[in-house]
Amino acid sequence: MKVKFLAVVLMAILISGISNAQAIKEDFKPSTYNQPLSQYPQVNSQGYARFRIFAPKADSMRVTLGLGGQGGTVLKKGADGYFTGTTAGPMDEGFHYYHLITDGGVFNDPGTLNFYGSVRWESGIEIPAHDQDFYALKNVPHGKVQQVLFPSPSTGEPRRAFVYTPPGYDKSAVKYPVLYLQHGWGEDETAWSNQGHANLIMDNMIAAKKVKPFIIVMTYGMTNRSVRVNGVRQFAVDTFKTVLLKELVPYVDANFRTIATRNGRAMAGLSMGGRETKEITLANPEVFAYWGLLSGGEYAPADLKGKMKPKFLFISAGSKEDRSKTIPKAETDLKAAGYNVATYISNATAHEFQTWRRSLLVMAPLLFK
Amino acid sequence: MKVKFLAVVLMAILISGISNAQAIKEDFKPSTYNQPLSQYPQVNSQGYARFRIFAPKADSMRVTLGLGGQGGTVLKKGADGYFTGTTAGPMDEGFHYYHLITDGGVFNDPGTLNFYGSVRWESGIEIPAHDQDFYALKNVPHGKVQQVLFPSPSTGEPRRAFVYTPPGYDKSAVKYPVLYLQHGWGEDETAWSNQGHANLIMDNMIAAKKVKPFIIVMTYGMTNRSVRVNGVRQFAVDTFKTVLLKELVPYVDANFRTIATRNGRAMAGLSMGGRETKEITLANPEVFAYWGLLSGGEYAPADLKGKMKPKFLFISAGSKEDRSKTIPKAETDLKAAGYNVATYISNATAHEFQTWRRSLLVMAPLLFK
Repeated sequence: MKVKFLAVVLMAILISGISNAQAIKEDFKPSTYNQPLSQYPQVNSQGYARFRIFAPKADSMRVTLGLGGQGGTVLKKGADGYFTGTTAGPMDEGFHYYHLITDGGVFNDPGTLNFYGSVRWESGIEIPAHDQDFYALKNVPHGKVQQVLFPSPSTGEPRRAFVYTPPGYDKSAVKYPVLYLQHGWGEDETAWSNQGHANLIMDNMIAAKKVKPFIIVMTYGMTNRSVRVNGVRQFAVDTFKTVLLKELVPYVDANFRTIATRNGRAMAGLSMGGRETKEITLANPEVFAYWGLLSGGEYAPADLKGKMKPKFLFISAGSKEDRSKTIPKAETDLKAAGYNVATYISNATAHEFQTWRRSLLVMAPLLFK
Repeated sequence: MKVKFLAVVLMAILISGISNAQAIKEDFKPSTYNQPLSQYPQVNSQGYARFRIFAPKADSMRVTLGLGGQGGTVLKKGADGYFTGTTAGPMDEGFHYYHLITDGGVFNDPGTLNFYGSVRWESGIEIPAHDQDFYALKNVPHGKVQQVLFPSPSTGEPRRAFVYTPPGYDKSAVKYPVLYLQHGWGEDETAWSNQGHANLIMDNMIAAKKVKPFIIVMTYGMTNRSVRVNGVRQFAVDTFKTVLLKELVPYVDANFRTIATRNGRAMAGLSMGGRETKEITLANPEVFAYWGLLSGGEYAPADLKGKMKPKFLFISAGSKEDRSKTIPKAETDLKAAGYNVATYISNATAHEFQTWRRSLLVMAPLLFK
């Protein structure tokens, strides 16, 4: 009986293995982030990614993407000079950074657009998500994303920020609340628009009347300033804090129609941007009333004790992040201590942008209430 | 006597050759467009460019940049696995696109940022120009560059444009004239800001009171829609003309404080954007009063005969372009026919962005007068 049972299990595993191997659907399409006219990389409806790179005299080619931690996908060269390969399994839904390693050198995939991550512009690919509609470009009224260059005496040069203003901003006299939204380590102020589609998420939610319109301000967290070649990295939030609180917030309040009070300001960030958010909100609770950590740590009642009380705390992570396991207790503790808190775990995603797109979707309607 | 003269000439050539070879100044610095932390490519004070790429197992590496038409710069591999090479001579001042060819494959230089040209994002390098101050980022009041997504029923999806608004735009009730400024073939609506620094050129001129502030609108000319894989390219301006005249101009007039009349509008473009400008202004002279062709053709009195008269024509090219030789006659003819025309030849530059940055600098103060 036992043996028979084992045999059935083994058979099931074998069949499952075989059917998995045979089940790759040949409905591959170019990734939405491809360069114009570029047919590769491609993705299929199951989330597999396929790569194809022309390098007729190269000996080896590897894509740093595949099944996390397994060294990526090795491409094989055909007689036509193209290296081709498919990931060993379906990828997580959403956006992934990657690059190529060919003959020992690191290059970007010539087929795709570049996105700023890992302190450099890297190749990006989008695995179509079941919920991709919420960040799709639709025929709805669109807000604007403005590049501003604001004076920064503390750093000696004008600094760049992107400012999302909601549809209708230019035709009203209404004052809007402002979310200061930070990127993660190795990224910059382009990330929340390019990888995150924060503007489209807002446009779609505003069109569906799911959120009260607000302004989003995204600037560089300067987290990469102190990267050392020998691998030792210093993280000091002071320089950024000065830029944010003494220079950017006053500039935004002077140049946009903002509700220039604590109750009109939120700060949130992903990953290291969450760490920045935590440090800055706890040190200056009088500036922001709404605080959000996206895969970027948690607040504990002990952190908040004796400080000006935030109106709202938001804490999120992907279900594939270790952090997701500690968030429920953080929520319980904060609620028990009397704080207004919401948490969110993004299903089946890791420390990547799909987690943060969804976090913004969940967090935005809860701000400024 | 003759022999002696020849010998002197030969000697001079030899010495010149030797001194040229020895005269490369070792004051190389990272190009301003490098990725963060990236030390290469570098440029020296004479305009030489030096490249350094890690690819220990690759056999060959070439940079498609060097002395025009000579196949670029071949890099040589050192024992440390780095391919290194220096251009055979100084490069023209300003911005250049390039890519790498390694073991037969085309890749971007991992050391630099990418810029959209040749229907793809390519590597870029900046050779410091003697006049680079006019497009430098300075501590002056800065305008904004806004990304707008405007409705486009004719193409079925919202389309992107970038809109430069001058400093002070948000704090006044003034209406501004608008320049519609087009990129060249293979480029897109990012080119005039990223490669051209149009916003910084305007900011600096406005700060120096050299130009009356105006708005600049940059959108995609859709010149690449019809690129064929077999090399045959169709150029049809109709699709773009519909988007520009029926959709973008009305959107801009409805959403920005513009002088929404012919006298408040200019159109100009570089290269193929000039060709678009020429076709559209001649077909619809009632929409724009100021017309500019930057390395993009010329107007002749015969083109203009019987049409509503433009208030101003601007025609420019780089001195290294064939076009620069025919511009003086075009100017003479147009002036003789009673047209208000200005021309400009950029010294020692070719069909590249330094010609167009300078053209904008010269053209801008002459518009809307």
